[in-house]
Amino acid sequence: MSTLFLRTLREDPADAEVPSHKLLVRAGYVRRVAPGIYSWLPLGKIVLENVAKVVREEMNAMGGQEVLFPALLPRDFYEATGRWTEYGDTLFRLKDRKGNDYLLGPTHEEMFTDMVKGEYSSYKDYPVTLYQIQTKYRDEARPRAGILRGREFVMKDSYSFDLDDEGLKRSYENHRAAYIRIFERLGIDVKICFATSGAMGGSASEEFLAPAPTGEDTFVACRTCGYAANAEAVTTPAPAAFTGEREALKVLDTPDTPTIDTLVAYMNEHHGLNITGADTLKNVVVKVVTPGVKEPETLVIGVPGDREVDFKRLEAALAPGEPAIFEAGDFARHPGLVRGYIGPQVLKELGIRYLVDPRVVDGSEWVTGANEPGKHAAHVVAGRDFVADGTIEAAEIRAGDACPVCGSDLSIDRGIEIGHIFQLGRKYADAAGLDALGPDGKPIRITMGSYGVGVSRAVAVMAEQRHDALGLAWPREVAPADVHIVGTGKENQIEIATQIAEELEAKGLRVLLDDRAQVSPGVKFKDSELLGLPTVLIVGRGIANGVVELRDRASGDRSEIPLAEAVQKVLEACA
Amino acid sequence: MSTLFLRTLREDPADAEVPSHKLLVRAGYVRRVAPGIYSWLPLGKIVLENVAKVVREEMNAMGGQEVLFPALLPRDFYEATGRWTEYGDTLFRLKDRKGNDYLLGPTHEEMFTDMVKGEYSSYKDYPVTLYQIQTKYRDEARPRAGILRGREFVMKDSYSFDLDDEGLKRSYENHRAAYIRIFERLGIDVKICFATSGAMGGSASEEFLAPAPTGEDTFVACRTCGYAANAEAVTTPAPAAFTGEREALKVLDTPDTPTIDTLVAYMNEHHGLNITGADTLKNVVVKVVTPGVKEPETLVIGVPGDREVDFKRLEAALAPGEPAIFEAGDFARHPGLVRGYIGPQVLKELGIRYLVDPRVVDGSEWVTGANEPGKHAAHVVAGRDFVADGTIEAAEIRAGDACPVCGSDLSIDRGIEIGHIFQLGRKYADAAGLDALGPDGKPIRITMGSYGVGVSRAVAVMAEQRHDALGLAWPREVAPADVHIVGTGKENQIEIATQIAEELEAKGLRVLLDDRAQVSPGVKFKDSELLGLPTVLIVGRGIANGVVELRDRASGDRSEIPLAEAVQKVLEACA
Repeated sequence: MSTLFLRTLREDPADAEVPSHKLLVRAGYVRRVAPGIYSWLPLGKIVLENVAKVVREEMNAMGGQEVLFPALLPRDFYEATGRWTEYGDTLFRLKDRKGNDYLLGPTHEEMFTDMVKGEYSSYKDYPVTLYQIQTKYRDEARPRAGILRGREFVMKDSYSFDLDDEGLKRSYENHRAAYIRIFERLGIDVKICFATSGAMGGSASEEFLAPAPTGEDTFVACRTCGYAANAEAVTTPAPAAFTGEREALKVLDTPDTPTIDTLVAYMNEHHGLNITGADTLKNVVVKVVTPGVKEPETLVIGVPGDREVDFKRLEAALAPGEPAIFEAGDFARHPGLVRGYIGPQVLKELGIRYLVDPRVVDGSEWVTGANEPGKHAAHVVAGRDFVADGTIEAAEIRAGDACPVCGSDLSIDRGIEIGHIFQLGRKYADAAGLDALGPDGKPIRITMGSYGVGVSRAVAVMAEQRHDALGLAWPREVAPADVHIVGTGKENQIEIATQIAEELEAKGLRVLLDDRAQVSPGVKFKDSELLGLPTVLIVGRGIANGVVELRDRASGDRSEIPLAEAVQKVLEACA
Repeated sequence: MSTLFLRTLREDPADAEVPSHKLLVRAGYVRRVAPGIYSWLPLGKIVLENVAKVVREEMNAMGGQEVLFPALLPRDFYEATGRWTEYGDTLFRLKDRKGNDYLLGPTHEEMFTDMVKGEYSSYKDYPVTLYQIQTKYRDEARPRAGILRGREFVMKDSYSFDLDDEGLKRSYENHRAAYIRIFERLGIDVKICFATSGAMGGSASEEFLAPAPTGEDTFVACRTCGYAANAEAVTTPAPAAFTGEREALKVLDTPDTPTIDTLVAYMNEHHGLNITGADTLKNVVVKVVTPGVKEPETLVIGVPGDREVDFKRLEAALAPGEPAIFEAGDFARHPGLVRGYIGPQVLKELGIRYLVDPRVVDGSEWVTGANEPGKHAAHVVAGRDFVADGTIEAAEIRAGDACPVCGSDLSIDRGIEIGHIFQLGRKYADAAGLDALGPDGKPIRITMGSYGVGVSRAVAVMAEQRHDALGLAWPREVAPADVHIVGTGKENQIEIATQIAEELEAKGLRVLLDDRAQVSPGVKFKDSELLGLPTVLIVGRGIANGVVELRDRASGDRSEIPLAEAVQKVLEACA
């Protein structure tokens, strides 16, 4: 450490909100260059490489073959699949000196498909799984939390190529098993959640979410049946359709009822109803911008009044379309939409698409807007007084909601997406015309899977899941070194610490030695806790009595051991 | 090889001109994605990683500390040093979704300077050497030869930070020694040449050129004193100035003398002179575009008539200005420049800058244009009849030219730049204000060195220097595997080959096993020669007699050995 390019910081960086960001900066692992763009200092680079090594080993063990694609890619490939446009602002686009269009690869489905098409032709060549560990680029609207959601990041992406659906399922299961091993080795606690497939296309898909209070993703879990899903992928069980008689729609005066609560209170008090917010139908107007389409679409979403629209669920449901707030100016252009009093009864007439929560089944009865200021309508029946254009999963999920599998109560937690596995199917093979020549001479369209692990993000996730108030606590396999030997004191402690370090290195251990002169023991201990190496050996004042101190960073256990046994004890601790 | 993602090609790719490009594509190491942008297939990726490993080990051994910067960089850093503009079209520029300017890093001087400034403050912190192995981007005007000159490429760049010039010299010498070791380990033959520093700025600089007939760089070497220099850096010894009497300038009719040869012949025949081309002064007009400057400058270069202007030397001499051909339209706008009959006598009057070859010393006498159609002037004396604005190294270098150190004959060869070391000095520290606080409390401006190794280019250079008509021949340390075991035949050869492979792998050898069924021995041998692993073991028909064949790819040596000794013999060959 006397020559290591490292300066720890005592203060949290001003722009940091989550623990991993604060600690990785304070401990000198990463430095910010621009929003969502970071440099890796020496210790951080080692951790990053160690994570990549674990990922590489497990990918090789499951039969993956490593390749490397460029990050700078010509437009054509992404044009063919529509993603040049669909990716919207998230894609970094640029032109070369000849004016040709390029992009910085956000993910490489197109490129892998093209590579396999270039090399393979016969059914005998398949299956094959290729992967790369590579720098990727996404111009995130909200880069955040240091390297947790960056605009330049390192990712392992792999792709499986199979002749049939059974093969794809096998490849998918192999990846799933490999990912479980990877996150075990990285000491990352994960929950495997059903997921939506977003801009990737395709069908079956699961996310590996690392539970963390700072996570951006919300997931539900059912303790009864084991169901777990990203909030975006949670499906709402629809009640049975009601087919009996309903009262006729009635328009009622409801002055000064701008909110669901005031509306419910007024209805119950003045119109003799006995309803809750769940009996009202809230209609939220959004405009949807679809990349490549000029005019935004006006869309109304109907949800039970006791629930908010969850914007992330809405985004997932509309992707690649991007919903945006319907503003005062937009209302001004749509006089038929009476703000605060919108009911679906007029939407068909206005030519506005209407999507409803799955709870809004045919025959269900609602209190909703009457499309006049100060008026609401009661006994508005779905399928009779309005017909929705479809359902949408956009209402917020709540703890206690019914599990879509077994009906038990769901719990809700936050997590960080650290892995994602998709059964893509034939979307990309169709776009590229990727066929194998079958045994009968006929072409077989290849079916693909796409699988990602956030390699740089994993560093942040480990920090997020494994830290305390004092600093980081790396799992051994990815730590910058196995043991941190701290020499403190004015006698020959640093000399002895150096000898122990040399002996341990000779035995194959990775050692970080604090041999700094003129740095106080207090500062050295603080740095050691901040840096978070799994095993710490203090060579300090105890030397006078022939003892040194062995610390375990994660558990906090400390024990005095005889100096003569130090090497042996450290080896045991690091075994 | 029965499952390896590899298809070798029998035909050279249509766009390939140099051996490394042809062979790396044919042997399935790389694939083209766009001009100057390549993907690495599994075997290529292994070679690339092996090169990076050698570079990393030697950089660590000399005290370098590895970090990693982003490739996507905000404009500000490069604006501060002027390189945002100076790099011209070679820089990939882009905007993010907020309209902010970014670039793809072509080299990271600014970023490293900023990083050190952020962490270090005291003179006690120095010296420090940091490096990264990273993907870089340059929008080359002429990407060529596959991965030899790519637009996306992998480079090791390092930077030294010292308190004084002596420190910088030491850091420079340490890098020089490390580079010599790196290229030895990579089996790359290099010539260390004096170099110009181009867009980097700075003073002392040497290039590591790998001699190869396909190289883009020209270098001279002196067998007498050991001097070697990139052609751009060769200095021309100036003759002593002549101070005696000269005849007065005389304008002569020289009809139909558009070339130097016709001029010399006419002068000698009709005007009683006895001159050669070397006695004439050829004046070449160019326009110089300087990045960031709107109007190109008109510039005249004077060289002895027996030499051409070497455009690469001219470019190096004018950098960051970029010379371009002076076209008919340009002449039309400058009626004072009489095409084919330009003499320097009028340039001052025309306000045009004039730079001359160092041989054009004061008092030297020339035959040159008289600035009238069909007329030349004799006895035109430098310093008397014209005064140049300076000298320029732009005339071509020829084998047999005098060594600027000892005067012996220079030889000329071609090579590929594979490493470059610079003493940058304080240019970047000045721009960033990088100071260390000295022992006396006063700031010390840091002095820097910048050092590069082309990591992906090294793969091409090895292929360029180590191949024959049949294929590649990798040095052991970077080869995709130590040994290629080829099982051929319809008996149990593949089974035996597999057993030997397993035994060798258990002993730590990296093995490529050709276990393909239904592939003929001829094809397997061809593939083995093409792939170029250093040691090849053929398990073929000889099995019937208990023998296998051991081949050394580079030397072509072949020997039959008893099957029972195969493992031992391969281990010895690979030791």
